[in-house]
Amino acid sequence: MQIVTYMIKADELNIHTHDVGSSRLGFMQDDWIVDAVFAQQWLIQEQQEVFPHLLPTDLLTLLERGKNEFLILESVVQKMAPFNVSKCKVEGEGIALESDELLLLPPLPMPVSFRDFYGFEQHVKTCREKRGLSMIPEWYELPVFYFSNHRAMVGMDHKIKKPDYTSCLDFELEVACVIGKRGKDIAVEDARDHIAGLMILNDWSARDIQRKEMAVGLGPAKGKDFATSMGPYFVPLSALEDRRKGDHWDLKMVARINGKQVSKGNLRDLTWSFSEMVAHASQDCELVPGEVFGSGTVGTGCLLELGTEVHRYLEPGDMIELEVERLGVLCNRISRN
Amino acid sequence: MQIVTYMIKADELNIHTHDVGSSRLGFMQDDWIVDAVFAQQWLIQEQQEVFPHLLPTDLLTLLERGKNEFLILESVVQKMAPFNVSKCKVEGEGIALESDELLLLPPLPMPVSFRDFYGFEQHVKTCREKRGLSMIPEWYELPVFYFSNHRAMVGMDHKIKKPDYTSCLDFELEVACVIGKRGKDIAVEDARDHIAGLMILNDWSARDIQRKEMAVGLGPAKGKDFATSMGPYFVPLSALEDRRKGDHWDLKMVARINGKQVSKGNLRDLTWSFSEMVAHASQDCELVPGEVFGSGTVGTGCLLELGTEVHRYLEPGDMIELEVERLGVLCNRISRN
Repeated sequence: MQIVTYMIKADELNIHTHDVGSSRLGFMQDDWIVDAVFAQQWLIQEQQEVFPHLLPTDLLTLLERGKNEFLILESVVQKMAPFNVSKCKVEGEGIALESDELLLLPPLPMPVSFRDFYGFEQHVKTCREKRGLSMIPEWYELPVFYFSNHRAMVGMDHKIKKPDYTSCLDFELEVACVIGKRGKDIAVEDARDHIAGLMILNDWSARDIQRKEMAVGLGPAKGKDFATSMGPYFVPLSALEDRRKGDHWDLKMVARINGKQVSKGNLRDLTWSFSEMVAHASQDCELVPGEVFGSGTVGTGCLLELGTEVHRYLEPGDMIELEVERLGVLCNRISRN
Repeated sequence: MQIVTYMIKADELNIHTHDVGSSRLGFMQDDWIVDAVFAQQWLIQEQQEVFPHLLPTDLLTLLERGKNEFLILESVVQKMAPFNVSKCKVEGEGIALESDELLLLPPLPMPVSFRDFYGFEQHVKTCREKRGLSMIPEWYELPVFYFSNHRAMVGMDHKIKKPDYTSCLDFELEVACVIGKRGKDIAVEDARDHIAGLMILNDWSARDIQRKEMAVGLGPAKGKDFATSMGPYFVPLSALEDRRKGDHWDLKMVARINGKQVSKGNLRDLTWSFSEMVAHASQDCELVPGEVFGSGTVGTGCLLELGTEVHRYLEPGDMIELEVERLGVLCNRISRN
């Protein structure tokens, strides 16, 4: 199940008049994006299906309502599977759209909060080796994170404006997990139950300003706060069970710049597991549905680590694609404005 | 004008039935806390005053509605001044409460975001000197900040639970400004116009875990995320004009532990002004009403800087009072649970 948050493009106004301008919840079926609530209404009207209630139109509410809500969505997805969604209509209007008719927003356009971790040992080690530094002993003691700007999330169809203040714009290949269940002082062995699902995350970074911030010892903040990409879709953990080993998922990760592959890793190599991160973050701090945790950059997953001999820092016009098995391809172009 | 966010204590239920259990907006008049909307209703009903509309019951909405809303509140406060608020009633119920009848919540119970800066040179310098380190050149280049947990705000009447994971619990004497006007790429000379007002802030810190986080180079996060105190009230900039010199305010700051003064400073010594912080943070990042900026700790404003020869780290039972001229006294007790 691949859950998307989308908005109909303005120039599609004359064709699709459902809730134009506001974001909606959908799911992928073949090459179509199917509106979740309209699909549910179609099943009720045309197939006499019965549901306890209508789904919400946003992922945050879905998460807040708890696991049963995902079961309703899953049942809508399964019941739609045999049908040609492009032909299904509710009140004379289509329930499915093609990707060029809409904008893919981040699955959670405004997370409740955004913590980014530093969970892959290889990334930390290589970046430090490049600066002639040995590994930090404290890194092995606790899964360190920082809070980043939860108000700067962008989706797949958003251009990334290169900030005027940087000449070292970088990407970071990460996976994020989303909290789906409230909790405080969560034990590591219970933590997976608090995770609703995964998605790809690109933690755009301005390395020159980040270097200054880290010299002062706070943040990073301006090195990161202008944009973070998430998506293209959100995948519930239930759909990834066949790839799970304990608290890890075996999912290949790659990054491409202008079509050329530059990074390669696997989510199973995450040294601090998402469960350990959740347990750590929840100590004396309540977690609630809709909080987002970034894994940290996978080994080789950014230019800072690869070195400019592999690729120069990013410039307007560059196209960055992050691909993670089962989680899709998150693709963004850098722009001047 | 001193704006508070309060909640009626549960055992006052039988006396005051207005909106019990939800937070309300009020202002201070003598020793009374006057409900802003009930006062406005009293003025309409008993004094035939006319207002364009009723005030909201929370500060965030007040901020979002813009400067004119503060003018309405100011006019309510001024028009109430000649009256004995303890005698004023709306529909048979009092509009004013004594402090022991209510809980003072943080003026903004859930800020839109929380950035904490490092704006006082003396604090940074002394802390580094203690570790045998010289000043960081990058500190003079930009007003560095980190994002902290905007979901952990507590008010004056909240006990601070000492996290189980720390044995070095510390306070930090700071002042916070609150954004009142939307903006991006704000010039320093325009920035003051984006600040709605000030309040006291205590950025509670777990120094042992913070040390580890800063060694790894991210955050701090768990060193700070369990609680931040704000209040007791919020003071609009218009009420501080007589203490303003350019972008600085001349306001004495002190901290007391169990009645004994340990810190002394002045907000006018803030090296990076709030205007410079706002301008910096707004580069390529939109600021909106309700975002909170902490000044950073004033020189001598925490035990890390003072040293344990002045006072041991905080323990359950300790009472910490932060006092800032015109901004009141923010007082919290440390608890075991």
